This record gives sequence, C-alpha cells and structure tokens, in this order.
Amino acid sequence: MKKKLVLAYSGGLDTTYCVKYLSEDLGYEVHTVIVDTGGFSAEELADIEKKAYELGVAKHNRVNQVPKYYNDCIRYMVYGNVLKNNTYPLSVSAERMFQALAIAEYAKSINADAVAHGSTGAGNDQVRFDVVFHILIPGVEIITPIRDNKLSREAEIEYLKGKGVVRDWTKAAYSINKGIWGTSVGGKETLTPNQYLPESAWPTQITKTTPEDLTLEFEKGELVGINGVKMSSVDAILKLRDIAQPFGIGRDIHVGDTIIGIKGRVGFEAAASLITIKAHHLLEKHTLTKWQMYWKEQMANWYGTLLHEGQYLEPVMRDIEVFLESTQKSVNGKVFVRLEQRNFYLTGIESKNDLMSSKFGTYGEMNNTWSGEDVRGFSKILANQAMFHGLVNETQK
Amino acid sequence: MKKKLVLAYSGGLDTTYCVKYLSEDLGYEVHTVIVDTGGFSAEELADIEKKAYELGVAKHNRVNQVPKYYNDCIRYMVYGNVLKNNTYPLSVSAERMFQALAIAEYAKSINADAVAHGSTGAGNDQVRFDVVFHILIPGVEIITPIRDNKLSREAEIEYLKGKGVVRDWTKAAYSINKGIWGTSVGGKETLTPNQYLPESAWPTQITKTTPEDLTLEFEKGELVGINGVKMSSVDAILKLRDIAQPFGIGRDIHVGDTIIGIKGRVGFEAAASLITIKAHHLLEKHTLTKWQMYWKEQMANWYGTLLHEGQYLEPVMRDIEVFLESTQKSVNGKVFVRLEQRNFYLTGIESKNDLMSSKFGTYGEMNNTWSGEDVRGFSKILANQAMFHGLVNETQK
Amino acid sequence: MKKKLVLAYSGGLDTTYCVKYLSEDLGYEVHTVIVDTGGFSAEELADIEKKAYELGVAKHNRVNQVPKYYNDCIRYMVYGNVLKNNTYPLSVSAERMFQALAIAEYAKSINADAVAHGSTGAGNDQVRFDVVFHILIPGVEIITPIRDNKLSREAEIEYLKGKGVVRDWTKAAYSINKGIWGTSVGGKETLTPNQYLPESAWPTQITKTTPEDLTLEFEKGELVGINGVKMSSVDAILKLRDIAQPFGIGRDIHVGDTIIGIKGRVGFEAAASLITIKAHHLLEKHTLTKWQMYWKEQMANWYGTLLHEGQYLEPVMRDIEVFLESTQKSVNGKVFVRLEQRNFYLTGIESKNDLMSSKFGTYGEMNNTWSGEDVRGFSKILANQAMFHGLVNETQK
Amino acid sequence: MKKKLVLAYSGGLDTTYCVKYLSEDLGYEVHTVIVDTGGFSAEELADIEKKAYELGVAKHNRVNQVPKYYNDCIRYMVYGNVLKNNTYPLSVSAERMFQALAIAEYAKSINADAVAHGSTGAGNDQVRFDVVFHILIPGVEIITPIRDNKLSREAEIEYLKGKGVVRDWTKAAYSINKGIWGTSVGGKETLTPNQYLPESAWPTQITKTTPEDLTLEFEKGELVGINGVKMSSVDAILKLRDIAQPFGIGRDIHVGDTIIGIKGRVGFEAAASLITIKAHHLLEKHTLTKWQMYWKEQMANWYGTLLHEGQYLEPVMRDIEVFLESTQKSVNGKVFVRLEQRNFYLTGIESKNDLMSSKFGTYGEMNNTWSGEDVRGFSKILANQAMFHGLVNETQK
Repeated sequence: MKKKLVLAYSGGLDTTYCVKYLSEDLGYEVHTVIVDTGGFSAEELADIEKKAYELGVAKHNRVNQVPKYYNDCIRYMVYGNVLKNNTYPLSVSAERMFQALAIAEYAKSINADAVAHGSTGAGNDQVRFDVVFHILIPGVEIITPIRDNKLSREAEIEYLKGKGVVRDWTKAAYSINKGIWGTSVGGKETLTPNQYLPESAWPTQITKTTPEDLTLEFEKGELVGINGVKMSSVDAILKLRDIAQPFGIGRDIHVGDTIIGIKGRVGFEAAASLITIKAHHLLEKHTLTKWQMYWKEQMANWYGTLLHEGQYLEPVMRDIEVFLESTQKSVNGKVFVRLEQRNFYLTGIESKNDLMSSKFGTYGEMNNTWSGEDVRGFSKILANQAMFHGLVNETQK
Repeated sequence: MKKKLVLAYSGGLDTTYCVKYLSEDLGYEVHTVIVDTGGFSAEELADIEKKAYELGVAKHNRVNQVPKYYNDCIRYMVYGNVLKNNTYPLSVSAERMFQALAIAEYAKSINADAVAHGSTGAGNDQVRFDVVFHILIPGVEIITPIRDNKLSREAEIEYLKGKGVVRDWTKAAYSINKGIWGTSVGGKETLTPNQYLPESAWPTQITKTTPEDLTLEFEKGELVGINGVKMSSVDAILKLRDIAQPFGIGRDIHVGDTIIGIKGRVGFEAAASLITIKAHHLLEKHTLTKWQMYWKEQMANWYGTLLHEGQYLEPVMRDIEVFLESTQKSVNGKVFVRLEQRNFYLTGIESKNDLMSSKFGTYGEMNNTWSGEDVRGFSKILANQAMFHGLVNETQK
Repeated sequence: MKKKLVLAYSGGLDTTYCVKYLSEDLGYEVHTVIVDTGGFSAEELADIEKKAYELGVAKHNRVNQVPKYYNDCIRYMVYGNVLKNNTYPLSVSAERMFQALAIAEYAKSINADAVAHGSTGAGNDQVRFDVVFHILIPGVEIITPIRDNKLSREAEIEYLKGKGVVRDWTKAAYSINKGIWGTSVGGKETLTPNQYLPESAWPTQITKTTPEDLTLEFEKGELVGINGVKMSSVDAILKLRDIAQPFGIGRDIHVGDTIIGIKGRVGFEAAASLITIKAHHLLEKHTLTKWQMYWKEQMANWYGTLLHEGQYLEPVMRDIEVFLESTQKSVNGKVFVRLEQRNFYLTGIESKNDLMSSKFGTYGEMNNTWSGEDVRGFSKILANQAMFHGLVNETQK
Repeated sequence: MKKKLVLAYSGGLDTTYCVKYLSEDLGYEVHTVIVDTGGFSAEELADIEKKAYELGVAKHNRVNQVPKYYNDCIRYMVYGNVLKNNTYPLSVSAERMFQALAIAEYAKSINADAVAHGSTGAGNDQVRFDVVFHILIPGVEIITPIRDNKLSREAEIEYLKGKGVVRDWTKAAYSINKGIWGTSVGGKETLTPNQYLPESAWPTQITKTTPEDLTLEFEKGELVGINGVKMSSVDAILKLRDIAQPFGIGRDIHVGDTIIGIKGRVGFEAAASLITIKAHHLLEKHTLTKWQMYWKEQMANWYGTLLHEGQYLEPVMRDIEVFLESTQKSVNGKVFVRLEQRNFYLTGIESKNDLMSSKFGTYGEMNNTWSGEDVRGFSKILANQAMFHGLVNETQK
C-alpha cells in the first residue's frame, strides 16, 4: 500500500512539479489541499481542482478557512491594531499560518505519512509550514522538493514536459498573493531598496477619485456594520475592500525583518485592513484608559511578531488573545471616515462609552469635577521624586 | 525693596492680566519672558516686547530656545520616531517644557522670589510649568492668577479696562499654538468627538497640488540635507515645513490622555515633523537590527509619554537619550519622498549601511550564504518548545 | 436629621480621635467599619467593637474581607509571582485597597454623605483610600481629620481627655500591620537607611530551628494542599504561615518608592507569601513556555505597581487578571520545600505538565527528537542578522 | 601546506579526541586555545598546556580573558542585577561567549581555515560557539567532531587508545564548570525535576558557620572595596568568593529554557555574584528613581536573555550597555551584609546619593516639603480616569 502524503497545492509551477515528483518519483499517494483565505474566486478554485485531478492526485480538497481565519486571528489583529513595523497588516504572514493549520488538520484526519509544501529555501513561508507541522503533527515527515532539490524554473518545466505536462508557465512580472486581509505584490522594484512600484503593478487600479464618506460601526471591537447596514465582520471587511480599494487606499511597501534574519521588502494593498485598524484604534483612543492602551500596544506588538515568525501556536498567543478580548468590552460605536484618492482620514467617532464625554468636563474648559487647587497639589507631588533627586545630587546648580 | 517675579508672558489677554495683577495688586517687580520655540516672527517678538513695556514691566526678555529645544529634545524624538498614540508629534507638549526650562533658568539667574504662568486649571500646561519649577527652583513660589482666581475673560477685560489697558480682546475662533515641531489648532469642532476641522481652520492653506519629489539626507539619525543641499537640522526642518505644509500634509486630529486623566482632542498640522519621522523610520528599517528596532520603540514610547506628562527632567530621560543616540550610528543615507495633496509616501532609500544589501542575499531569492537545509534545522529547533508543550499537555489531539 | 458618615476604624488613637471629632464637633452620625484582611483575632474584633460603641458610634460593622481579598487579588499576585522590587509581597498595599473597597461598599449601601479615614498626610494609605473613594463613590465627601488638622499625638490625647476618653495611649515601639499576606514592622531602625531591625522587633519570634520538609500542592496556579492534605487556598496560606513563620523565614526590609515620590523603608515578615510565590514560580519554570514566563513577568510587574499605587480599580487590572489566569492552566503539581532557620529552599517539583519531561529528551543528553545537524542549521540562521550587520558595517575588522 | 584549524581546548576527553581526529584523520595543523574566565589555577593551565603538546598540537595558547570578561560583560550584569529567571547569574552562558570571542579573535589573527569545538548536539554551548564564529569569522568552516560523529565516550576512549593516548577517563560524578562569576554543577539529580544535590556534590564545602558582617563599597555601580579596603572589581569579586562561599551561600538550582527549546536544570554555587548583585540592587533602590529602576529591569532582563542565547554580538547589546552605564552615576556608597550558614541578608546602606535622605522628609512622618492638602489634590487627579470610566460605563452600580 502506498504511503499517504498531503501537499499544500496552489496550481502554480512549483506545486505542479511537486505533485508529479512526489507521486511518480517518490511513489506517494498524493492528496492535494487548497486552502482559501479569502483570495480565490469560485472559478479559480474549480480550475485548481480540475488541474489537480489532471495531474493524477488521489484526492483534492478545498478548505474554506476564512471563518476560522477571521475568528481565530484577524479578530485579534483588529483588537490589537496590529501593523508590523507600524505599516503592514501581516496579511501573508497570517494566511500562511492558517493554510498550514488546515493542511496539518487534514493530514491528521487521513493519518498521513508525510506532508509537503512547495517553498524554496529563501523565504519565510518554509519556516511557517515547517513549524506548524512539527508542532501539530510531530513525527510526520516534511518533504520540500523545491527547497531540497534546488531546482530552477527551467528545470521544473523541463521535468514536467517529460511527464507530459505542458502548460504556459510564463512567469508573471510580479508575484501576487491575495487574501481577505490584503494583497501582496513582490518582484522587480521591491527587490531594490530605492525603487517604488509603478502604477500598473498594483492589482487594483484606481477607478474612484471623488471623495466619499463612510460610517463604520464596531461592537466590542469588531467591525459589524457599514453605512448603517449590519453584517458579519467577514462580509464587512470584504465590502469595505470593494468600496475603498478602487481609491488606491492602503498601498504601501513594507520593509522588515524576515524570520531568517535578512531584510525583506514587499508591496501590498490593504485598504480594508488599514481602514478597519485605524478606525478601531481611534475608537479605542476615546473609550479605553491610558494603561489599557499602553498594554494593548505591548501585547499586540508581540502578537504580531510571533505570528509573523510562525509562532501562532506558541501557548502565550492564547493568553494574549484573552487579554486583548477582555479590553474590548467598551469599544463600541461609530467611526466616520473620509475616503480620497490614495488617502483616507478619520473625521470623528460617536460612542456611548466615550471617555471624552462632555458630561464630566471638557479638556481645556474648567468644570466642577476638580479644581485648579487639586491640580496644584497633583503637580507638587508629581514633581517630588525628580525634585529630591536634584536636591540630593545637586544637579540643579 | 520689591520682591522679584518672573512671568511666562505671551502678550495675550491672560498674561496681560497677570502683569497688572502681579505688579499693581500684589506689588511684585515683574520680569516678563517670552520663549521662542520656533513659532514667532521677528515682528511678533518686537510687538510683544513693546506691549510688555507699555504695561510697565521691570524688564522684558526674549529667549531664543530653538537650538536648545532641537538639541536636547527634538533630536531624540526623531531618533525615537516619537508620535504620541501613533499620531501626534508632541509639539505643544515638548515646547511647553522648553519654555518652562528657560523661565526657571532666568528666575534662577535673577534670584527671583516667585514665578508665574497664565495657565488655567483645566489643561496640561499648568502641570508642565509647575513640575519644572518645583524641580529646578524648589521653594520659589508659583503664582497662577488665572487658575487661582478662576476669572472669566469678561472679568479680566473689565479689570484691565480699570487699569487703563484697552485693547481688542476679541477671541479668535481657534486657539493656535505654533512652533518648529508643529502647529496645534483647538476649539469648536475639536471640543466634540465627532466633528472635523473645516478647511478654513487650518493655519496653512493648501496652495500646492502638483506632486513633488524630495530627497532627505540623514547622518547618524539627524536630518542634514534636502535635495542635495546640506544644512543644519533646524534649518532643514524649517525648509521642509515651507516645502511640504502648503500641500496640506501632516494634518490630523490627536485624541489622547491628558496628564489630569481626561481625554483631550486637538487638531494639528505638522508636515515637517511627520515627514522627518516617517523618513527616518524607513531608513532605520533598512539599517537597524530587529532587536534595535524593538527596544527603540519601547524606550521612545516612554520618552514620549514622560515628555508629554511634564517629566522631561526625570533622570531616566537622560538614560533613554544615550540609548537612543547609541542606536543611530548606522542610520545614514537618503530617503526619497513623494509629496501629494494632503498625502505623502516614501518611495525608497539609499544607504551604505543598508542591511538589505544585495551583496549578502536577497529576500526570496536563493543565495550562497545559507542553505535550505540550514533553515530546515532552524525550523525544527524553533518548533521545539511548542511541540513539547503540545505533547506534554496533549493539546494536539 | 444628621448626615451619615462612614469611618474606617481600627480602635487606635487616630481613629478614636476621629470618632469624637466627627460626631461631636462636626455633628455626623458616625458608622465605624473594621475590615478584617486576615490580621485580627476574634477577641481583637470584639474588643474593637466594644470600644466603638463606648465612643458612641451610631453603628459599628465588621467586614470579613478575607475571601474576597484572596479571590480578587492574592490569587493574581500568586499567579504573577508579585514581589515589589523583587522583595516585598505588597501585603499592606493590597490590604489597604480591600479595606477601602469594603468601606466604599458600605457607604454606598447606607447612602452615606461622607467617608473618613485616619491617615496622615505623609504616607501611601491616604492616597489609596482617597482614590478608591473618588472612583467608587464619586461626590461623597472625604474627611481626613488627622491629615487636615495636622494634630500631634499629644494634642489628640489632650482632646480625647477633654471628651472623657482616657486610655493608655503609650506608643508602641514599632507600628505593626498584620494581614493574611504578611505583617509589616515599621519604626526606629526602618526610618534610617543603615540599621536593621533587632531580633526582638519581629512579631513572630524564632521557635523552630530543626529543618523541616514540606510538600505544597498547586492546581491551576493556586495553592490547594500541604503535605498531602487538600484545603482551601486561604486555609493553606494560614497553615503555611503557622508552619513556617516560627523559623524566622520571609523576614526582610523593603525599600521602595512611595506613591508620593519619596523612598520608604519598612520591615516585614511574610513566610507564607514568600514560600507560596517562590514555589509557584518554580512550578511555572517547569510548566510554562519561555514567552509565557516573559509576558507574565511584564504584566505581573505592572499589576503589582498599579496595586501598590492605589490603582486596583484601573480597568487594565481586570484585563491583566484574565491574562494571568489564562496562563495557569498547566501550573499543576507538587513543590518540595526545605525549611531552615531564617531560610528555605526548593528541592524540586513533580508535575504531569512538566516540560522537562524525560520522555522528550533531557537537556545535555542526545535524543531522537532533533539532531546536531538541526542545531547547526539553527545556529547558522540565528547568526544571520548580526553577521550581515557586521559585514555591511565592517565591524568585524 | 596544511590547513590551519583553531580548537577550543579544555584537556577533557572530548577535546582530546578532537585534537587527534582533526590533526591525524582530517590532516589539519591544530592550534589549541584554552580561555581562562576565572576558573583555572596556574597549575591546571600548565597541565593543560603540557597535555596539548603531548598530543602533538602545532601550537597551544593560553588566553587570560578575565579582565575583558569583567569589563565587557560582568560589569553590565552587575549594573543590571542580571539573574536569569530571578535565580541564575548566567555564569556559564556568559563565559562561553567570552571563550568563543577569544577563539574567534585568535583564528582571525592566524588566518585560520577552520575552527572547532567539542560540543555535543544536545546543549546550549554549541549554539554559542557557532553563532559567535558565524558573526566574527564568517566563512571560516566550523567543525564539531563530537556533534557530527555522534560518538559515545566509550568509542572516543577506544579511538584514543588506538592512537596511543591512554589516560584515566573515569567520568566524574558531576560535570563542574568554574569561572569568576560562578560554578555550575550538573548531573544525576539535576537531570531529574524532583531531586536536590547532596551536600557532597557542592564544589565548595561548608567550613564557616559563625555569622560574619561585611561592608561592600560601590562606585558608579561597580564593586570597588570590601571592609574598607579598596581594590579592583575583579579582585573584589574573587575576595568576596573566598569570604562567602565557605558559608554555603549562593547555592541554588536553576531551571530554565535552553536556546534549543527544552527545559534545562543545573545546580550552581555563586556566592560572590549573588551577594554583589543583591547589594548593588539595594543601593539602587535608595539612589535611583522609580522609572530608572523600571527601565533598568526591562533592559537588563533582555540583556540577560540575549546573552544566554548566544546573542552577545547583537548590536542592541551595545546600546543597552550605554543605557545601563548611564544609570549608574549615582550608585555610590556602602552596603552592609550579614553572612550566615547558607544564607545572607542586607542590613542597610550608606550613600551620599540616598534619595531616602532625611533632609527632605521621611516616609510616614510629616514634613515641610509638601502638605496633606497637596496629596489630597494629587489623589483626586490620580483617580480621574478610572472615575470617569466608571461613570461613563456605569460600572460603579
């Protein structure tokens, strides 16, 4: 009986090579899995499935991972306003984890002997797949033909031709990765430190130029409505993407540390995640206390870093999640957004939990809640330690 | 002999009242001090001096605090990419400290018996002045006539009329505070949570709409050149303001925690500081290590918070400064900026210290520095702890 | 009808003065409350009640706050291994909060017009009482006769004599504060920086000198058994105190920052809390991951600081609590303790959640889980960034 | 011409095997280096050298790394009060780095083709050596015969016998590693979670039982005198070890995370480092501000972690060092220590920089620096945010 292997399959050159190599050269019963994290149309998924069976896989599986991805990860990235290096919504980093999780889950369900992914030895994704597999299905062999065999595109194409698989393998100018939380664009200019992506490289071209006003509604930190219409958070993110991406909003280039210690640079467009996070953050500025803001920032920063580095399954992540969720009780209300060409800004909020509530005094205006005399005492005591430090160390002189 | 008092004087209604009240009602020999932190023209300074002597002050002093303000504070805010709540360059917060420092210094030099400021009991500034005075000139009496006497504008105007001081005291629609690091705009809409400032409220109106490219040059973290011309950092910031502010860049509304525990909301325009900080930050993403970035962020966040809360003289601030400065050795190079109407973005950098250097491998491309096999081992070990945790606690099942 | 006032009452000179002053001079209907946080015997509580009624209070109340104090605070201090400045279990700091909470609760229940406490203007306790009252019963007047009237002990005694209250008010050599989580000892030597408390000053004298072995049992981070006998955590702490305190264990002097900015120094004996925390911490070293340990330390440090500074009601405290609780799922097992005169140490643990489990490889011994080749790859990648940094910046030369 | 190789050599079985294998089987010109970090006597060093030449090495080198180790590392661990997991002075972790640094330095100086160390694939040391070599001498081959060949002790002994090297290779009951900052003891009991080291296992037996008082003197955070005699910090640490270790002070078992993700447990005795750190910490509690203490703790924690994990050369370490040094300006004075059998405690300090200075008010005693009224105002303002939060969210009800 053949050994069973589960392959993370996308239908591209690398994973097509893997199917043939793993089934025909290595003799595995190959199960392909395509994990949808919000980037495929129904047609694309059908086409991928068709191609898989044409290659002779034992079984092909589609996993709709979007609800789990939102509920177990995106939600917390919103709570935490997670933007890596203050810029990047970690869309690819997070997606890859949820693809790996789905594949490990499937491998476990069929009691697979091996798993495979098509990563090269040069990037982050190999680490993400490897780490999840080691943790969730320890002992199951991990096979990475592209990394192991160090094949060039030309060699892969030649190999496939020999197996009778002839397709148009022309390399796209840019490598595009699309998901619900953003679309990355890599290649050419992003491989240099000093060149910007040309207009034509952006997956969504600018088709809207007239400014537009938008109202986002949040409940306990989750986006639950747009312009007065309630909907699921997943639907709201997708709708927000449709509304805002044609403005060219949320485009940027992320420069950051890869897991393997070198710097990486990649373009992305992520109007929905950027607007959601900035709007959510503003609502928090009105509804959370100073120390809640501070500790959320610490925890969320780390949540993002561990997620980025393939450590989603590290137990502390679950602890951080309950912390973040606990802070969201009062993050309720509306946020008003102005969309413009390549830009957006927040014009204000309304919340029953607003700590700026004019009932209790307005900044810069006197009120009855405290007196100038109170602040005089406050300042005096606040100065005490540095004052004593100055006196003792005679630094005032 | 009269007791000597030093008054922080701006020429406005409140401090005009203070001069009369302190000299004529309380009998002090009043010395007025105007501290320039980059917001006054020569004409304004001359006018303020003229008015002071008309009110009968014993002595009026102008202090140009800009060089010290840059060197002892703005520089570190650039090193630290300090934006309060990820938004606000702390322009007013920092300025007020350096005004208080100059006044304390002057009070010490003339051996003053008292100092005075015109703050009300409702805002942050009273705390900043009080704290600096307590620390630097402990024991010198602090007099705050507006806070103490809880006078309305009308009562002040009436009082001054009685003293023969009749001027046009019509209140401006917005309270404007201008300095080298930014200009704040408060009033009307900013006192609500849901209204945005109208176009007309912004001090600098939009007069440029054609996109413009800009090259900023940094040495050891400091801005030292624009478009190929070297200049002092102070001059560079002022020039950058002249170039970029007419685009309407760097406008925003900051919502945050005041020192006294309530939420405050204030508009600001700060094109020069925003662009400088974002450009500097991008250069760091290329030239610093992951852990340098992480710890800089922590320290700088705190530097900003203590500065905002009037604690510039807390000894740890000096320790944070040496830390920040130590990290800047490799922050050298050019940053390319595209200016657009109400928006700017960074198109790339060039630096001899760029860790993205293609000499040592490019992200996503294979190279000779390490092998896929190395990463395989790395991922294995990286997964160890969570894997053991799963096995011991049987959470994989 | 008289206005109702609730007084935090201990039966000492200061609060005795307060009863008379508040009821007879100020005309309040005085309700006294004694809050037990584990430091009073039944006799003491009865005596305090008797004295209160002798002074003519309208009503005296005993509140047993121990279960709430354990459940809402001590539990989290154990989860977090909270020792202020790495030394002090925050016994007085925490107790005072729970006394203030109980008094605010009572004041609300009788719809009191005012609350009072006997704190002076020199210490931490005044801030703790004030802050809790401002937050929980905003608007209710806070009266602090000792602080306000700046009375000396002699003046208070004289005043009471005039009211016919004659008792032995001889001042104890040391001020002792006893509660379930520790007993503080202040006075004489602790007011100097260089003198240690004499043997006779310690509330519990050393009566045990023969070493003794102890087994503590924890479930989800809580102490639930001693030497094989299961009991409630409160009972376990009290029993541990009885066993260990006579060894002179857990004595130390805490030096730290008071809320008001000066340094304070106070002795304490806290065998039960020290042993519980150190034992709990060791169990965590075996059962939690590196990042759980790290973030627990951060959060707990802050939990302790905010608690110490009277900020137990800051909302972030509730968020930190859920975080800490979430980390404790695997903190189960036994800890072995050796007690000696003035010293204890931990000899080991046993836990089904022990990550040191020999099933998966022992440190320093080779095993089948990973290979030397894996670590070789791991080290290579781990060195990457600093290596590139060295090459780019030529610091190796 | 033979290729040159530098071997980290200790004279034990593993590195003896390495010499023969590397020179005779692999044909290298072997240079052995023994790096002294405070653990060898002159006799031991001479004996190691003699043995090296007997094995036929091309050259043997002794490096006295103690001054550099103190100046570039121990000093900062004292400034930072670095105790890993609140227990372990990181003696082995730090030593290993400084041994690796010396070996890389020597390899560079002779332009070596390869370096070798005798680490197995099971512990931390392999990572430390590898990482330092990759960073400082990138491209130089790293050979690790014991890790690579997975040899048993028996196989090594047999191999050496074949080469004519016959010695007494009886394995010691415990593996001992001695250096200036502590001595580790591993084996038998430390490989279990629940057994403690027997009395006989400790390298320094208890020969002192009569309590002894000690005065330590610090200047800018460095230990510079004992009992009134000034000396270098290195000499002071060695002298303190001689005085205190015979009391059995500073013995403990460290349980912590290894670099490779498993838990490790190891005994150690480190009287000098423990006493130095605790005394230094107490002096800081008197002389530093609250925020200096807080940020030192953060930075030092991380300094220890990166050091432990072989990342001493990460650039942020240099930045942390200047931060730590900056905080030490006021850490001057004497600390009084009481030594007892297996225990020590600190009885007080004297410092001209003591912020507890009675000149400016004593905790718990009223004074003229501030008033009760000041604290009343302070408490009011301090409560503001949580009060407003309660009012807005109606959580007081």
